[in-house]
Amino acid sequence: MIIDGKKLSQDIIAKLKEERKSFTFNIRLAVILVGDNSAALSFIKQKEKIAKELDVDFRLYQYPVSIKTKALRAQVNHISRLPTTKGVVVQLPLPKSIQTQTVLNGIIGRKDPDVLSENNLGKFYTQRLPILPPVVAAIRFLVETYKISLVGKNVLIIGRGPLVGKPLALWFIHQGATVTVANSHTQNLIDYTQKAEIIVSSAGQPHLITSEMVSSKVIIFDAATVSENNKLQGDCDLEGLKDKVSLITPVPGGLGPLTVAFLFQNLFTLLKLKSS
Amino acid sequence: MIIDGKKLSQDIIAKLKEERKSFTFNIRLAVILVGDNSAALSFIKQKEKIAKELDVDFRLYQYPVSIKTKALRAQVNHISRLPTTKGVVVQLPLPKSIQTQTVLNGIIGRKDPDVLSENNLGKFYTQRLPILPPVVAAIRFLVETYKISLVGKNVLIIGRGPLVGKPLALWFIHQGATVTVANSHTQNLIDYTQKAEIIVSSAGQPHLITSEMVSSKVIIFDAATVSENNKLQGDCDLEGLKDKVSLITPVPGGLGPLTVAFLFQNLFTLLKLKSS
Repeated sequence: MIIDGKKLSQDIIAKLKEERKSFTFNIRLAVILVGDNSAALSFIKQKEKIAKELDVDFRLYQYPVSIKTKALRAQVNHISRLPTTKGVVVQLPLPKSIQTQTVLNGIIGRKDPDVLSENNLGKFYTQRLPILPPVVAAIRFLVETYKISLVGKNVLIIGRGPLVGKPLALWFIHQGATVTVANSHTQNLIDYTQKAEIIVSSAGQPHLITSEMVSSKVIIFDAATVSENNKLQGDCDLEGLKDKVSLITPVPGGLGPLTVAFLFQNLFTLLKLKSS
Repeated sequence: MIIDGKKLSQDIIAKLKEERKSFTFNIRLAVILVGDNSAALSFIKQKEKIAKELDVDFRLYQYPVSIKTKALRAQVNHISRLPTTKGVVVQLPLPKSIQTQTVLNGIIGRKDPDVLSENNLGKFYTQRLPILPPVVAAIRFLVETYKISLVGKNVLIIGRGPLVGKPLALWFIHQGATVTVANSHTQNLIDYTQKAEIIVSSAGQPHLITSEMVSSKVIIFDAATVSENNKLQGDCDLEGLKDKVSLITPVPGGLGPLTVAFLFQNLFTLLKLKSS
């Protein structure tokens, strides 16, 4: 079955609209963008659209690519400390000249719905954070929705990046799965894909995973987003896989919209904790 | 080859003795013990012995098992903030009635050579901490000493606990290895052990790993410590394995003494950073 992430995300957003009513104040989400990368702008547009639907005051702060780490960090921290700012999102990736984590640490933990500050990552590591990184929350939601048991399951994570592979590896380890983290140096990836009961792929290599590589009834979460010939692509050969797998998230329309929905869920959860 | 951890740790301690001379002040290491568990006391004795050798002022603070989380956290934080305290070690495990992480977060990051506060764990997660959890530092030392390449290597971590399995999984992922984390729910552990080029075992199950289960030339880091018939045991059947493996750390006398040595190395490294 191909999971309809767009449809599911609309259900979540409908619930968030109700939740929004319980907040009687303006909710400003500050979004920090360096440069004007077209892919980044398109991701920001998606967030802006949902913000509007949820009556969240979306405020874009743009900086030139020439900005230095120290200045950007100071800006992020200043914006983060404004009482009117309720959440801060730094659009990644930042230019290579910038020390990304230094900038992200400028976000105050309780205003960090993306879970990217060290403060929140430390709590995520020790399982004491009340929210999960948005893509992890999206996958947990699918795991719960489709009643997928994880204990003792053979889970393969392809990629080990800070946004997808690493947090998901940690989360699946916490759930009691047997977790393998593969990367571009992995020898004979097919040995791992064939044994996996669940695959999370974030390699960013279109057509990396084909139907010959997986066992039937596998569950695949395709978390990659690559632009190929002006089309958004994941790692999976969806056409070949769709009749063999048990579940698969397509790209586009799979984890992407769900991840954006859970960014806003996190924003609201943090606000509720703060006011409780 | 059986690695002589005791001998190697003596070399490290000899170097630390030289390093000690560069500090002109008293170095107090505060050790927090709740209850009087005999295993904990024996681990503390090992640390005390090395502290003496290194002219480190070892100060044991003991609390009754009846102490509550809040009171213990306050004690740890108070001791941690004393200018005379240069490092704090909370002897684990704490009684089940206590919220361990809450207590550990009472340690100030720059006085946390064990890397157990969330503050330091967040930095470890983002690879920005200048020290590594002691057992990770011990394994990195062996990896460097024996010139073991890790990129693309098939690494199996058995166990996912906070002191060994979890930090080591993360570290090996950072090194570019293909890392599998197994646990007590893992089906057919032998499928994983046979394929592994490097095994880190911290299951705490004597005789779990036997020679039939591994490929020849495997490298095994046995990080388990269990008391069986009043004898300290690891997870490995050392007798059967020693002629098949490329390298193996015995228990006792393997990672244990190295881990203690790197606790003191971390204490000194943090002090140098602070004064620079």
